[in-house]
Amino acid sequence: MFSFNIDHKDPQSSARAGVIQTAHGEIQTPIFMPVGTAGTVKAVHQHELETEIKAQIILGNTYHLYLRPGIEILQQVGGLHKFNGWNHPILTDSGGYQVYSLGNTRKIKEEGVTFNSHIDGSPHFFSPERAIDIQRIIGADIIMAFDECTPYPCEYGYAKKSMEMTHRWLARCCERFDNTQGLYGYEQTLFPIVQGSTYTDLRIQSAEAIAAFNRPANAIGGLSVGEPAEDMYAMTELVCGVLPADKPRYLMGVGTPVNILESIALGIDMFDCVLPTRNARHGLLYTAEGILNMRNAKWKDDFSPIDANSPCHSSRFYSKAYLRHLIHSSEILGMQIATLQNLSFFLWLVTEARAHIQAGDFRAWKEMMVPKLETRL
Amino acid sequence: MFSFNIDHKDPQSSARAGVIQTAHGEIQTPIFMPVGTAGTVKAVHQHELETEIKAQIILGNTYHLYLRPGIEILQQVGGLHKFNGWNHPILTDSGGYQVYSLGNTRKIKEEGVTFNSHIDGSPHFFSPERAIDIQRIIGADIIMAFDECTPYPCEYGYAKKSMEMTHRWLARCCERFDNTQGLYGYEQTLFPIVQGSTYTDLRIQSAEAIAAFNRPANAIGGLSVGEPAEDMYAMTELVCGVLPADKPRYLMGVGTPVNILESIALGIDMFDCVLPTRNARHGLLYTAEGILNMRNAKWKDDFSPIDANSPCHSSRFYSKAYLRHLIHSSEILGMQIATLQNLSFFLWLVTEARAHIQAGDFRAWKEMMVPKLETRL
Repeated sequence: MFSFNIDHKDPQSSARAGVIQTAHGEIQTPIFMPVGTAGTVKAVHQHELETEIKAQIILGNTYHLYLRPGIEILQQVGGLHKFNGWNHPILTDSGGYQVYSLGNTRKIKEEGVTFNSHIDGSPHFFSPERAIDIQRIIGADIIMAFDECTPYPCEYGYAKKSMEMTHRWLARCCERFDNTQGLYGYEQTLFPIVQGSTYTDLRIQSAEAIAAFNRPANAIGGLSVGEPAEDMYAMTELVCGVLPADKPRYLMGVGTPVNILESIALGIDMFDCVLPTRNARHGLLYTAEGILNMRNAKWKDDFSPIDANSPCHSSRFYSKAYLRHLIHSSEILGMQIATLQNLSFFLWLVTEARAHIQAGDFRAWKEMMVPKLETRL
Repeated sequence: MFSFNIDHKDPQSSARAGVIQTAHGEIQTPIFMPVGTAGTVKAVHQHELETEIKAQIILGNTYHLYLRPGIEILQQVGGLHKFNGWNHPILTDSGGYQVYSLGNTRKIKEEGVTFNSHIDGSPHFFSPERAIDIQRIIGADIIMAFDECTPYPCEYGYAKKSMEMTHRWLARCCERFDNTQGLYGYEQTLFPIVQGSTYTDLRIQSAEAIAAFNRPANAIGGLSVGEPAEDMYAMTELVCGVLPADKPRYLMGVGTPVNILESIALGIDMFDCVLPTRNARHGLLYTAEGILNMRNAKWKDDFSPIDANSPCHSSRFYSKAYLRHLIHSSEILGMQIATLQNLSFFLWLVTEARAHIQAGDFRAWKEMMVPKLETRL
């Protein structure tokens, strides 16, 4: 069922436009995937994801879903799609990243990771096999290998050891995945993850090892964790050069609008990031003309639409002054409006990128867009 | 412009069905008015108020709007309708109630009330004249007299003195109102407020005094502040007997679904309350079959719709288990869904009440509904 077809390649960069087919429908790439941590993209309705934001695939976090609502509930209802009513593609991470960043007193060993819930302190154990089993139960169309995402900076020795363990864990993930089936009558696809921190030799080594597993798509992890942007781009370019060109490439946890355009140019097809949603709730807006901090007093009597060119109704309907008031007053509606703006903009951005790849002028368009996207309005 | 026509009277109670005409459109009574404290009904979009909740009029709180965004902004944009994009009727309270309940170190004197902002402690002064001026700037279709809302219980001597001052304040409100005009080219209407705590003689005295001002509508304040329900009903019935039958009667701050039906039976036409919105955010749902506490574990694997009979899409689309998960995880979407459910139910309830008044079987319907509405599911 899972397939990837590249329609167009940009003549002046490594950007490509394609279509991923999944059991819950197709995804036009390059794509940005809104993060729906606990089975909800915070502050937006599922129908708004469809009609306003025009999301094609959303993320779920295995760690969060495992703790709440719990896998018993998800199994009983028949998976996350049935639970939250999102009948389009879903991707779940493996839970590893949250275990490392949120879990208390985590211990990483060859067998797996023990950790305590950040909610109630209860003890839990994740392993490559367990991460696959849980993701089988959640039932996402795309599931991720259980890896260790090293922090930045990371000492070379640790990065190498960790990468090697991630490769051994991937073998265990693949074995478990290949010996089990989706629980709900449709196919799931496992994406392996390249690690190697910011070390050129490790990244090449990891990309080669991961490519050798010959899965239908590949992901790049361990970037956008605090390293300089040039390092991120350098590692991405390096890894894209090793990973097979005919399979989707997913750059995990990236990024700003500029990061996304630059990484598309390097050959990345899929992105996810909490930036548009988290920053929205703090009043930071992304638009095609630049970034607006809605907390600034300068917006208090600006009665023009939030973003007159937004594909999103609420951004054309409400004024900057009204949104500024809502954000300033910590009103929920402010978070709703800002989230709709940011996500619809991120989806607009990748859709435009795709159109320009198809038109053959992606690079010129990107170079025109980048300074605008970085402007503080 | 403001008018009230009674279409039907219930033969077996004092309930009536009517239509209020305002500059921003008509209101079919009896009506429930969602509370939009700071110019937003928390967690719902304006278009959801229109199409899902079917609100006909919403409330704004003068105290909150005066502090944020402030009257300069509201005057500059041309009033609250223009600011928040709600192009239907709006009612504002006078600010008094919030001054007493939220303001710090408030001092009530004959001239007016000094208080400190609950946001930044800054000193402010409200008087009957100032409350009218501010409400002229906010530009609501219906504005309220500046009164003192006595707490419960309230000593007789204080209740009497306070009521008498409220009457003198009303004279000042009317004078200011009658000597000024709406700022934005449409008419506003001032509602006076009956006080008198839970004392029969004071309530009669106040209702007579307020009726003598001969304004186009009348309100009843100082109830639903902690007194037993039977006292609230007794005072409401008493006051309704004195206030003219051909003018709208607004029972301020009431109440539960049962309170609303019982008060409609006593001759009340308009209601507002934070109950459906505030309780929604804490996971308490109102339905035609009873009350659901979504925090209860019993809902965790109930995959049936939140309310299959709801007029609201989200209540038919999402399951109880999903909403329980969202509320349990303090997700914003949970507050959104629960608010939509409660407000659409409150609007459904008054619309049904109206239909049964028109059909002549309101009393029988009310008696059938009351036990259901009180049921804890």
